[in-house]
Amino acid sequence: MARVVIWGGTGLTGGELLRLLAGHDGLEVVAVTSRRRAGQALWTVHPHLRPDYPGISFMSPDEARSVEADLAFLALPHGTAYPVAAFCLDRGQKVVDLSADLRLGDEKLRHHWYGDGGAPQDLVDRAVYGLPELHRDELIGADLASGVGCNATALNLALFPLAQAGLLDEVRAECRVGSSEGGATPGEGSHHPFRSRALRVIEPFRHRHMAEALQELRLDPERLTMTTTAVELVRGIQMIAHVRLAQKAREADLWKLYRRVYGEEPFVHLAPARPAHLRFPDPRLVMGSNRALVGFGLHDDGCRLLVVSAIDNLLKGAAGSALQSANLMMGFEEGQGLHLRPCYPA
Amino acid sequence: MARVVIWGGTGLTGGELLRLLAGHDGLEVVAVTSRRRAGQALWTVHPHLRPDYPGISFMSPDEARSVEADLAFLALPHGTAYPVAAFCLDRGQKVVDLSADLRLGDEKLRHHWYGDGGAPQDLVDRAVYGLPELHRDELIGADLASGVGCNATALNLALFPLAQAGLLDEVRAECRVGSSEGGATPGEGSHHPFRSRALRVIEPFRHRHMAEALQELRLDPERLTMTTTAVELVRGIQMIAHVRLAQKAREADLWKLYRRVYGEEPFVHLAPARPAHLRFPDPRLVMGSNRALVGFGLHDDGCRLLVVSAIDNLLKGAAGSALQSANLMMGFEEGQGLHLRPCYPA
Amino acid sequence: MARVVIWGGTGLTGGELLRLLAGHDGLEVVAVTSRRRAGQALWTVHPHLRPDYPGISFMSPDEARSVEADLAFLALPHGTAYPVAAFCLDRGQKVVDLSADLRLGDEKLRHHWYGDGGAPQDLVDRAVYGLPELHRDELIGADLASGVGCNATALNLALFPLAQAGLLDEVRAECRVGSSEGGATPGEGSHHPFRSRALRVIEPFRHRHMAEALQELRLDPERLTMTTTAVELVRGIQMIAHVRLAQKAREADLWKLYRRVYGEEPFVHLAPARPAHLRFPDPRLVMGSNRALVGFGLHDDGCRLLVVSAIDNLLKGAAGSALQSANLMMGFEEGQGLHLRPCYPA
Amino acid sequence: MARVVIWGGTGLTGGELLRLLAGHDGLEVVAVTSRRRAGQALWTVHPHLRPDYPGISFMSPDEARSVEADLAFLALPHGTAYPVAAFCLDRGQKVVDLSADLRLGDEKLRHHWYGDGGAPQDLVDRAVYGLPELHRDELIGADLASGVGCNATALNLALFPLAQAGLLDEVRAECRVGSSEGGATPGEGSHHPFRSRALRVIEPFRHRHMAEALQELRLDPERLTMTTTAVELVRGIQMIAHVRLAQKAREADLWKLYRRVYGEEPFVHLAPARPAHLRFPDPRLVMGSNRALVGFGLHDDGCRLLVVSAIDNLLKGAAGSALQSANLMMGFEEGQGLHLRPCYPA
Repeated sequence: MARVVIWGGTGLTGGELLRLLAGHDGLEVVAVTSRRRAGQALWTVHPHLRPDYPGISFMSPDEARSVEADLAFLALPHGTAYPVAAFCLDRGQKVVDLSADLRLGDEKLRHHWYGDGGAPQDLVDRAVYGLPELHRDELIGADLASGVGCNATALNLALFPLAQAGLLDEVRAECRVGSSEGGATPGEGSHHPFRSRALRVIEPFRHRHMAEALQELRLDPERLTMTTTAVELVRGIQMIAHVRLAQKAREADLWKLYRRVYGEEPFVHLAPARPAHLRFPDPRLVMGSNRALVGFGLHDDGCRLLVVSAIDNLLKGAAGSALQSANLMMGFEEGQGLHLRPCYPA
Repeated sequence: MARVVIWGGTGLTGGELLRLLAGHDGLEVVAVTSRRRAGQALWTVHPHLRPDYPGISFMSPDEARSVEADLAFLALPHGTAYPVAAFCLDRGQKVVDLSADLRLGDEKLRHHWYGDGGAPQDLVDRAVYGLPELHRDELIGADLASGVGCNATALNLALFPLAQAGLLDEVRAECRVGSSEGGATPGEGSHHPFRSRALRVIEPFRHRHMAEALQELRLDPERLTMTTTAVELVRGIQMIAHVRLAQKAREADLWKLYRRVYGEEPFVHLAPARPAHLRFPDPRLVMGSNRALVGFGLHDDGCRLLVVSAIDNLLKGAAGSALQSANLMMGFEEGQGLHLRPCYPA
Repeated sequence: MARVVIWGGTGLTGGELLRLLAGHDGLEVVAVTSRRRAGQALWTVHPHLRPDYPGISFMSPDEARSVEADLAFLALPHGTAYPVAAFCLDRGQKVVDLSADLRLGDEKLRHHWYGDGGAPQDLVDRAVYGLPELHRDELIGADLASGVGCNATALNLALFPLAQAGLLDEVRAECRVGSSEGGATPGEGSHHPFRSRALRVIEPFRHRHMAEALQELRLDPERLTMTTTAVELVRGIQMIAHVRLAQKAREADLWKLYRRVYGEEPFVHLAPARPAHLRFPDPRLVMGSNRALVGFGLHDDGCRLLVVSAIDNLLKGAAGSALQSANLMMGFEEGQGLHLRPCYPA
Repeated sequence: MARVVIWGGTGLTGGELLRLLAGHDGLEVVAVTSRRRAGQALWTVHPHLRPDYPGISFMSPDEARSVEADLAFLALPHGTAYPVAAFCLDRGQKVVDLSADLRLGDEKLRHHWYGDGGAPQDLVDRAVYGLPELHRDELIGADLASGVGCNATALNLALFPLAQAGLLDEVRAECRVGSSEGGATPGEGSHHPFRSRALRVIEPFRHRHMAEALQELRLDPERLTMTTTAVELVRGIQMIAHVRLAQKAREADLWKLYRRVYGEEPFVHLAPARPAHLRFPDPRLVMGSNRALVGFGLHDDGCRLLVVSAIDNLLKGAAGSALQSANLMMGFEEGQGLHLRPCYPA
């Protein structure tokens, strides 16, 4: 069994990683760090995992530095992860950094969207963007991978085939997101009386996750507008994109295109063209799984395309893609610990 | 007191009309029809109104034909309302028809979207479109008004100032709607295990409510794309429109424009520019009231505009606008029975 | 117009009072205090009331002390309200204190449940318990009234007729409460990912609101067990009590009993015996109104009685009863500003 | 691989069985019947399982009769399952009947609660009640097992240790249930505008699931009162029981008792005594898993005990216990296909 350390294990992503790793035959969690909760039983923060981790307690980061490990997952705040990544790499560990520190390869782009995150360029250059559907070959055997932004992932998986084919003239994308995207820390915006059934449009035009879409889809910012709305959900993202195609298309050709790109993917599935109510995927159909669903519909004019994707933000949008990447890095079967079926209806 | 008959009073719109009329000083409900429920107490269908209508029972349509009345609200299915409208007009009653039968004035447009609804053109020509913000002068003293489509109303109130100013180059609109929009009749789509927390994209591109937006905004169909998503709400619509302006604009000028159009409106309010979380209105802030909220934000490029509106679909989107129209038709204060304050948080 | 000051106007109860007072013909809000928000527009905290209070800002408590007023509502934390009550009384104002400081008349009882809240006994002795259904005559013209606990109110209205008739042998009561009961301050328990759809049993056996039930129903603590569960609601309380009657009863006699006590009450209504699905009231049927619904069902054995009540915790359980009491104290029609009809379905 | 036929596979229980069996190494689904949907792809009814069952379609019952199988799950309506059970047994198949036909062994009890379900007594006598925690030894190698009622299971697992120890003097139990308990067929009660956030008290005193509790706990009906409330949940049951103990107890002894009974159980877990907010289990903590959580708290008087249990009604309350029973009947590891971890928060 390879030994795993989770750095920053009190958040929702950390909890989801723990849920997945409890079912992984090749990886064993040897330490989970928390500065604030050091010494407390892990289940006090993740009560649903009490039977899976009855004994283990959170460990202070300092103590964790001396733990022998083969793989490290970093579920730490932006700007605090990259030094830990460097430390773990020096100790010969493989690293998946779920923070944003290493996601953006281009220095200008990174600074524009995150300011000086501080990550040294050479470290960034070592990191593979942790979305196997777009970077599988680079991930195999790699030492360092970034995590992915959940909204960016919904956008990238939905539009990659069109981007690759040069068909994206203009994209107006909207992500409807659940409250778990905001993490485990309470705030006024997440206070139940105000958040319940809310339809809160989060500042449009400049959501940070756009940067990852611009990078991975190689899009000119002029062509992409992105908004985000917090909706009554805990888990799940539905991305709906109004696309203007660069040239008229026939639906049959778009199906060919999407099938060619995703036909063999273990975790990306195309929604059926009919029945109509299944054509545009609902995140409830992937909830609790690492799956992504993509569906589309073409306007009679052959130019206006609606593309919709659905993922569980804590899985395909975070912990799931991270473990999938780790499996490729460590030489495990890509889907190890990820063969969860959606919990529906729920 | 003027005497009111509600034709088709078992639905959600009928219930909301009854709630409003119970607080109206000039109108008295003398009959509420239902073919299926004739003879049953009104409160068996609208239990929340039992203290307001302790005695009244539903009346069969046949019986209702002989009831003396001054005003009739028709909350009947499309295609079945216009004959009742004609009947009531012949009896010298004023009529507000909440069905779609009389909303679209142009015969071609109407047939394209609804097929031959059957309403004779001369009757359609008599009907004023029942949105006071756009047709107040025609509604004053009128005999016949149509109801409004709830999604169309969210769209029309949000975009009317821009349309009037010729600023709409392209609109990609999305309505997020609550389950009450589907009415009181159960179906697979409204079955709680499937509907709860759903994000169901309803057939895009050709939603019937588009027709009312095309008519009222005088838009070329090429310029308008509209989608609808069923979200976890019972009451409420949030319309979010990605607009490309016909010419670059400054935000200050857009504020002037919207203030000029809505500054004096009793039920349309502009969302504040800040704080940011209030800029794009949430339907929860108008829930239970006849109010509409409109907010917008301009991209730095001066061309990409995000416009968001919020209404309670059963009020401003249906029964509220209908009563507001009726008040104008009957010579009452326009807001009579409509001075409800939003129930928030709820 | 009588002048009203609201002390502590940033909470949910303060917001609800403001919503009600905006529709009251005899009362005018002249000041709303907040230590933290002094100087900020009232609508930044209560955005749904922006059209109702476009200009007014929060005032510091110090400034408010010099405001001329006829009536003061205290929506302040327990232990901080009674000095303000004393101050206002000295200035000749009438006072409704929504905190718990003055609810419990008996010193021992008060100390047992709240510790030394600090309120002097002579002040407590001046206060009438602010539930008009139980203390109407004392409230008429009174200078000082307490508020009511929302859970206690659900319990008291449901069981008062039985208590008065000496029929309560044993009561096992359960309140299912919405998140607004916890107030406007965020915390881990109210964080949406954790609170949404929660069924959280709050520490049983010793909920403070029990004390008000013991006082008003004159019950021996041995006879009452009370639990509370946080459920997926924002507004609303449903109280369900398993009662063992002191003597066998016939349902007809219980109906007589309840009708005798509540037959004339403007805001307490009995649920119908049938149809069955309306017999035990759902809080949704009173949401947004000052109404309370009470229903019951007797076991064939004539001893096991199920009593269920439903209220909107922010109205009948707080601001509504407070205004109803104030109307009686000030000589207004008891229901002034409270004739709101439930917003259903919502 | 043993061959499995699911009789009646279009419901929610059938869907959950399919989800579980897709992850079972020893069982292979060879047919899923539906009278109405015969010939349609399975995923049109269970869209979340499309990647797991891409090809299979529903089969007519007649066609299914000739399918070779080793095991049959019956997810058919009450009264229609027992003939299929007899048919399958005659063909040498093992049978788990999830309907209520075979749950109640005593003829009088069965007729009292279900009327003449029609199941012949000798068939009923062959059936083991399918709750492994109470009937493990009888289930090992058995040919026929019944399913379990979901509410009854919540009650039985919570109270069995107390019942066995003769400590139950009186029980007032309340189940809070999600909408999935009502199955996949729409109705007025499940219509989203009416069901969303509902707190609907379902006819008390005589819920059918009581019968299974009376049988399994060997309780006198005089001692048990049970009510059920539909709450805003899709999956999940929380049972809260107010128990009066037959004799004063100390909490430590109750812990010993519960640990002795459930200490070795793979799917029943005791909630921790502290932190307080985890003491009384929330169904969200087991959602999507076959786990049951049980917690309790004793009043200072040593007699009043609060016991709370939480399960996923579709898993431990239906499909999960059925598969767990089937594993014992077929000689598989008891937990095969059931090692799912709760999806939390969701």
